[in-house]
Amino acid sequence: MISSIKRFLIGRPLKSTALGEQKLIKTKALAILSSDALSSVAYGPEQILIVLVTLGTLAFWYSIPIGIGVLILLAALILSYRQIIFAYPHGGGAYVVSKENLGVTPGLIAGGSLLVDYILTVAVSISAGTDAITSAFPALHSHKVGIAIIFVLLITILNLRGITESASILAYPVYLFVFALFILIAVGLFNILTGKVSPDLSAPLGTPVAGISLFILLRAFASGSSALTGVEAISNAIPNFKDPAPKNAAKTLMAMGILLALLFSGIVFLAYYYGISPRADVTVVSQIAEATFGRNGMYYFIQGTTALILILAANTGYSAFPLLAVNLAKDKFIPRMFTIRGDRLGYSNGIIILGFASILLIIAFNGQTEHLIPLYAVGVFIPFTLSQTGMMLKWIREKPRGWIVKLIINTTGALISFTVTIVFFLTKLDRVWPVFIFLPLIIFVFHRIRKHYVAVGDQLRITTCEPAVPIEGNVIIVPVAGITHVVENSINYAKSLSADQIIAVYVSFEREDEKKFEEKWKMWQPDVRIVTLHSHYRSIIQPLTKFVDTVEHKASESNYQVTVVIPQFIPKKGWHNILHNQSSLLIRSFLLYRRNVIITTVPYHLKK
Amino acid sequence: MISSIKRFLIGRPLKSTALGEQKLIKTKALAILSSDALSSVAYGPEQILIVLVTLGTLAFWYSIPIGIGVLILLAALILSYRQIIFAYPHGGGAYVVSKENLGVTPGLIAGGSLLVDYILTVAVSISAGTDAITSAFPALHSHKVGIAIIFVLLITILNLRGITESASILAYPVYLFVFALFILIAVGLFNILTGKVSPDLSAPLGTPVAGISLFILLRAFASGSSALTGVEAISNAIPNFKDPAPKNAAKTLMAMGILLALLFSGIVFLAYYYGISPRADVTVVSQIAEATFGRNGMYYFIQGTTALILILAANTGYSAFPLLAVNLAKDKFIPRMFTIRGDRLGYSNGIIILGFASILLIIAFNGQTEHLIPLYAVGVFIPFTLSQTGMMLKWIREKPRGWIVKLIINTTGALISFTVTIVFFLTKLDRVWPVFIFLPLIIFVFHRIRKHYVAVGDQLRITTCEPAVPIEGNVIIVPVAGITHVVENSINYAKSLSADQIIAVYVSFEREDEKKFEEKWKMWQPDVRIVTLHSHYRSIIQPLTKFVDTVEHKASESNYQVTVVIPQFIPKKGWHNILHNQSSLLIRSFLLYRRNVIITTVPYHLKK
Repeated sequence: MISSIKRFLIGRPLKSTALGEQKLIKTKALAILSSDALSSVAYGPEQILIVLVTLGTLAFWYSIPIGIGVLILLAALILSYRQIIFAYPHGGGAYVVSKENLGVTPGLIAGGSLLVDYILTVAVSISAGTDAITSAFPALHSHKVGIAIIFVLLITILNLRGITESASILAYPVYLFVFALFILIAVGLFNILTGKVSPDLSAPLGTPVAGISLFILLRAFASGSSALTGVEAISNAIPNFKDPAPKNAAKTLMAMGILLALLFSGIVFLAYYYGISPRADVTVVSQIAEATFGRNGMYYFIQGTTALILILAANTGYSAFPLLAVNLAKDKFIPRMFTIRGDRLGYSNGIIILGFASILLIIAFNGQTEHLIPLYAVGVFIPFTLSQTGMMLKWIREKPRGWIVKLIINTTGALISFTVTIVFFLTKLDRVWPVFIFLPLIIFVFHRIRKHYVAVGDQLRITTCEPAVPIEGNVIIVPVAGITHVVENSINYAKSLSADQIIAVYVSFEREDEKKFEEKWKMWQPDVRIVTLHSHYRSIIQPLTKFVDTVEHKASESNYQVTVVIPQFIPKKGWHNILHNQSSLLIRSFLLYRRNVIITTVPYHLKK
Repeated sequence: MISSIKRFLIGRPLKSTALGEQKLIKTKALAILSSDALSSVAYGPEQILIVLVTLGTLAFWYSIPIGIGVLILLAALILSYRQIIFAYPHGGGAYVVSKENLGVTPGLIAGGSLLVDYILTVAVSISAGTDAITSAFPALHSHKVGIAIIFVLLITILNLRGITESASILAYPVYLFVFALFILIAVGLFNILTGKVSPDLSAPLGTPVAGISLFILLRAFASGSSALTGVEAISNAIPNFKDPAPKNAAKTLMAMGILLALLFSGIVFLAYYYGISPRADVTVVSQIAEATFGRNGMYYFIQGTTALILILAANTGYSAFPLLAVNLAKDKFIPRMFTIRGDRLGYSNGIIILGFASILLIIAFNGQTEHLIPLYAVGVFIPFTLSQTGMMLKWIREKPRGWIVKLIINTTGALISFTVTIVFFLTKLDRVWPVFIFLPLIIFVFHRIRKHYVAVGDQLRITTCEPAVPIEGNVIIVPVAGITHVVENSINYAKSLSADQIIAVYVSFEREDEKKFEEKWKMWQPDVRIVTLHSHYRSIIQPLTKFVDTVEHKASESNYQVTVVIPQFIPKKGWHNILHNQSSLLIRSFLLYRRNVIITTVPYHLKK
């Protein structure tokens, strides 16, 4: 039953050899890997205006130089990640780059930040998209959390079905969104050029503004930079691309950069020229759309695709998180279950954990995840800074052809990213302080896990340990509950193993019982020694364990191995199990985990 | 950790030989077994008045003849159960009596009714007691469900600690309640006799009442009879009494009957003489107390002990349910885990299940369990009727000395109980219809369970089945995941068993891997055959099961037994387990439950 539900939801299992077919072509990759970055133009420009409006509307012209600053940062990031893609063609992004060039701890800081960040991405973008929907249909408002959870589940299932399948479904909304914004920008510019928009709506560039300070400008710049979250996703996901993967990934990255730059500058410019002020109830994009088209079909088309892409931005997290987890798991910093491919060849454990964690976040914050945005931005810019610093060191160390240009690109990126990070810490410490708790904690856990795996590896490796103690003989203990076919079966098996000694053990709860049982046993199995143990506390495990300990102690002196053969009858139907005291299971797990004995279970399958 | 919490809550385990010390003396038995019956005088008389008030206050004098009817029923029940105690000294009550005299199905109807009824007892009385508390402290009202659940947990823990211990704690409130009511009745009667109460408050006996009908009188009688729920508890619990158990139980039963009769008739009479009308917000007992004492300390004492005994009435369920469950389990109608005594010698599984089920009921009805009262009353009178009919047949069949008197007592009881049951069905069908669903269902389940146990017994019994197939030789399959100490350990063990064939099986996910592994294996263990299986779907279980099937098929032709030896390393700390893919556990349970192979787990205990 469970397996057919599973099959219905995620489809039939795929052979490992089908892995190549699951790889992405450029257009699909662009859709599923850049939805996060592209969706941020829906709120990035607004963030700049929200800071500037504190100085009055005259200050809005600063959005143009700040926007240019963001474009420079974008260019630096795109060029830098392009270099990373070619330098690390097996994927990796910030974690691998930082680890290889700066050391393990910077790598873990980058990896840990991103791991948490992708969970935040999913929670924040699904909540934002749900907000957009419940704003349109207020009746749904009280079901916000439920709707958000359903979206997370849908995207999780889509990703479990496999990346090509989810890419096919998700590509349309992404391209529709890009298309809608291009029309908006084109019509807006056409109106401006044909003089349909009064140039008096906005203060000209260079108008002096009272109270302007570097701090406020930096803060506006940092806020605007939140539009760049998500650009690192492609460099993490190179293994998902069709061959030649690095080349395809680089082309996709460039395409995303150009799209992002065009959309971002278009929106910033239109917002400035239209003299738009940020409002609590209507977004900046919505105001531009209304000013350009009025409230007609085109306006609703733009609003609809915007809501959709905000939800789909979550998908970037689903593409990048499992691959980052694989890298961390291969280095033994997180459980190795993250390296296993599921039925549909995706890294399903990563996908499931990501969905589960985001649902927890959505529930914990009751769907109000806006407060998490600064935290989320910091979680992106820390790894940006680290990976570009790593690339700087790489160029200085390796000095390949044209390294000066490469160094300049990465240095620019590193400096701007670092500035943005510091500005976040200085201006929004009340929101980003959790970083100082969870980053050290997560790095501590990473190290503990790795320490365990290394210790296990050392103990298991044949070359490094002492030789195994030879087994000189076998003693078999059979706990018996009566004289039945189940017991007969186990005794026969024990006899067939030609052990040196077989001891049947009977635990009695009442004294009168013991003698009677021993006599009956001797009649039935005269050649198997019977030991009866009395249980004062009605526990089978306690006297049995004590007995096993005694036997084991004596056996180990002469290198004899003790095996406990447990008779177990297996009912025909699952529900029958609750009708039987599962003593055999209890005995098994207790002895196996706590004592140095071998446990053999002899099943006796009931036929009715 | 868990075991020390357990020890703190329920105390250290007791030896089986301490069972005698856990038996009850009469005064304690009276306290814990009659709290249900005694507490019902707090609402029984009121139930009569609630029916009569529909005809106006003039009809209240009918409460006197109806009360006498209830007393006759009480006398018949007490005398009848006294006869049951001596006839069935090992306890049993309605289930055993009905089963032995009327047959299995009537027995199961009685047993099933009571089983469900004890759950209702707990839920209803705890809710009623919580109501009394939240009426006194309205601030607690919104926490009603939580408070009720805490009370259930407390009483559950008290019962898990053992019956004598709970009896010692619970005896005080019960006797205080009896004491408080006696004072109330005595002072009330004194006031009446000294003429302090005007005789004009009530209509004289025999006043004609408009609209009176047999139906209404029967309905008032049936409602009043709900004060008799709980009188069967003692006959179920005879095994809990100190020796001579039947004699002590009979004396306790008589004491309870007399107390109940006195309190019931006192309250009915005072209510009549004071001319008290039932009110929604104040109980009848509370009105009598106020009329007698005014709102002084004595009034609050009566109110407090009443609230307490309503909660403690739940305890009767805890005393009777586990013992009834033991009787049903011994007859194989419910899982045999109910026959196991826990650490403190109580039947802990019954206690835990009862607590759990009542909490579910309280949550499901959000603490509003009043609607369940009629259901609960029917659930008592069905077994009353059945057990007394059973006793009638017993006397007719056995004809002991003085059987005519005994027959008359039981016949009276049977007729009245039957009438009450029918009246409930006629007048409160909207509340008691679930009986017609759950009784057939529960009896169906009883039979299914018994059928399974009988089938299992037949299959296990040595005498009735075909002889076991002899084992001519052993084939051992060792699934290996690499060349490690864990595998070495298992291979060495397999070799020590002098099996006829040992096959190591390696499941590979990648083709290149296979050759390399086979070569390495042949260098390492040249004398153990290695088979590599390729997994197309990244599952270990699928190819392994297929291989085991093939080997098993071939082996069974020549009566060879197949054993799968699973190497498993046991981490030092529990949390380490999540860091390892528990393939060995999966393989084990899959093969054990679905295939006819023996599973041996060879543990390799890690040291760090």
